Amino acid sequence: MNKLLPTLALTLFALSAQADPRATGDLGLVIEREDSAALIINTSEPKQLAKIDGLGDLSHASVVFSRDQRYAYVFGRDGGLSKIDLLQDKLDKRIIQAGNSIGGAISQDGKLIAVSNYEPGGVKVFAADTLALVADIPAEYAPGKRSKVVGLVDAPGQKFVFSLFDAGEIWTLDMKNPQQPVVEKFKNIGKEPYDALMSPEGRFYIAGLFGESGLALLDLWDTAAGVKRILPTYGKDDPKLPVYKMPHLEGWAMAGDLLFAPAVGKHEVLVVDKRTWTLLKAIPVAGQPVFVMARPDARQVWVNFAMPDNNQLQIIDTKDLTVSTTLSPGKAVLHMEFTPRGEQVWVALRDDNQVVVYDTATLREVTRLPARHPNGIFFSARAHKIGF
Amino acid sequence: MNKLLPTLALTLFALSAQADPRATGDLGLVIEREDSAALIINTSEPKQLAKIDGLGDLSHASVVFSRDQRYAYVFGRDGGLSKIDLLQDKLDKRIIQAGNSIGGAISQDGKLIAVSNYEPGGVKVFAADTLALVADIPAEYAPGKRSKVVGLVDAPGQKFVFSLFDAGEIWTLDMKNPQQPVVEKFKNIGKEPYDALMSPEGRFYIAGLFGESGLALLDLWDTAAGVKRILPTYGKDDPKLPVYKMPHLEGWAMAGDLLFAPAVGKHEVLVVDKRTWTLLKAIPVAGQPVFVMARPDARQVWVNFAMPDNNQLQIIDTKDLTVSTTLSPGKAVLHMEFTPRGEQVWVALRDDNQVVVYDTATLREVTRLPARHPNGIFFSARAHKIGF
Repeated sequence: MNKLLPTLALTLFALSAQADPRATGDLGLVIEREDSAALIINTSEPKQLAKIDGLGDLSHASVVFSRDQRYAYVFGRDGGLSKIDLLQDKLDKRIIQAGNSIGGAISQDGKLIAVSNYEPGGVKVFAADTLALVADIPAEYAPGKRSKVVGLVDAPGQKFVFSLFDAGEIWTLDMKNPQQPVVEKFKNIGKEPYDALMSPEGRFYIAGLFGESGLALLDLWDTAAGVKRILPTYGKDDPKLPVYKMPHLEGWAMAGDLLFAPAVGKHEVLVVDKRTWTLLKAIPVAGQPVFVMARPDARQVWVNFAMPDNNQLQIIDTKDLTVSTTLSPGKAVLHMEFTPRGEQVWVALRDDNQVVVYDTATLREVTRLPARHPNGIFFSARAHKIGF
Repeated sequence: MNKLLPTLALTLFALSAQADPRATGDLGLVIEREDSAALIINTSEPKQLAKIDGLGDLSHASVVFSRDQRYAYVFGRDGGLSKIDLLQDKLDKRIIQAGNSIGGAISQDGKLIAVSNYEPGGVKVFAADTLALVADIPAEYAPGKRSKVVGLVDAPGQKFVFSLFDAGEIWTLDMKNPQQPVVEKFKNIGKEPYDALMSPEGRFYIAGLFGESGLALLDLWDTAAGVKRILPTYGKDDPKLPVYKMPHLEGWAMAGDLLFAPAVGKHEVLVVDKRTWTLLKAIPVAGQPVFVMARPDARQVWVNFAMPDNNQLQIIDTKDLTVSTTLSPGKAVLHMEFTPRGEQVWVALRDDNQVVVYDTATLREVTRLPARHPNGIFFSARAHKIGF
């Protein structure tokens, strides 16, 4: 008995330590590219809570969150789909669902996880709780021919939307009845769609084209109208122009009626009038823009750049449509994420092995946190957003 | 020792039961008007988790959430400010901070709670963690004269905005330095502002006027331009027209470039072009509208009504600008709240002692939950929104 009591006391202590409850509204993940790992972080008092290892190839990674914000789903380059428990600091489940993958999305009701694959080309849909396969949608666009799938996002009404790189098609996938997926196909939308974005309310799906200029627009409120070409001069118009990195589309900034888009290969951010989808202005910036992201109150747009200008960040004033500030946070600015109401932004500095946090009002540094080769930052408030 | 062991075992059992972790992204509160109580609910599997008593007079109540979504702050009619712990199902703190209160807001960084008071007229600001008083801003508009304060919302940059009913003024309160609050006053904005709303990005503050027609608009991106009058014919234009309930402004729906507003006293929902602040259309509806709220994807606007039509709900199609469906959920439809990505809506039926949950795609009932005289529903995703 004398030996039992200390054990019980220790158990009690351990349980009470773990019983300290953690809320999930201010959590996030920082992806550590080389370590196959992710850091669970807290944004209220910027700090690291835990490190989760064993996530495979994260050279390109994206993350979505369960609707209760307890779980983060990490989509890795190697077809790995990892489910992380943000409350218990552990890898809950992990599967290799394809040979080569590019991204994923979570359904409106939070019950389905869709992944877009290069090899074999197609979309797979999994149960969010168990990661059991629910549907397999091969991207077969001609007999025996499967396309790489890119630009996968969720849409209202239990839908997903994605693009077929090799086929030049956009497909919508209706999962209202998980046993009977319904696919609608839009053909001849343009050559080699390579990425896409959804407008914040989930209405406009816009795919970038690698093989020709312009963008492909699908209005989900009017699919009968088909896919239209907008911004016909957008893209890599000069074949001799070196493009160091194709800009990401998912981060494009929608600020009121304005869309801020990275020009391809040029040192410009384009301002597009969303009502007419025409170019209003090209704002000169410090390099080839990669991510062009709006602060949640739409008053600032932050821009990072491809090499050799990837040590800089520029801030565009959305009222004046000019660059108001240039920051030099450090080496290899790869990604950024705003806190949900925009008072801070977290910036990944891959080659400085750091994340830097800025106050977006004063533009002063709040803190720097260590992170090994960080290349992506994702906050749990994404759980409540459409089109990610 | 023999008596001690069962106690320890019980303690262990209790601790391990409580240790089952709860995430906070899918939580919410249902206010029980007559019971001085709030139900903690979960929206993933619609159910009640707990009931919290002792919240005072909730005949008019509103709720904001901490940025981690652990705490809900309930503003009661009696000047009570209650802090509820959503993880531990308990009332964490409660103070009576004034004699008569109308609403509150939480600062952008989540550290400050502001409350607008009728008696004594003014705004008090509290530390979100301790509820200790941080600043007291009497709404003194002339020597010895204090106004009732209404329409309090948060704004980007650690600001709050509110209106002085008796003075016809709008004030902004900058709390960047909590020790030195900075107040900016806009005078002669119109007679008797009675409520206000903020546009979703936190730029436009719009106050409704009880004493005259039109609305008062402050553009926070251009405060030098002062307050402008918009929609000059809006309001109670016919003095003989009975108005059963002044419509709420906080719920006004912004859908793209369109603002959907309840007409005062008339059976109409007004569609306003946000670019010009002019009236586009008046949509005939079943009664005097009270709440006019957009589904998060902006494709539907839901409307409830004052007596005697308060057993109905109507749904406006925002593409066609017509009423597409009329529902009869039950007695005294007082409030509604959409899940963050809009797949469901929860509706409070005060006189049926129920909350009904609808699938917004099929318009079928998902479930009904018991609640005693519910008059307000608030989900934790509000933590991440501007202007509430």
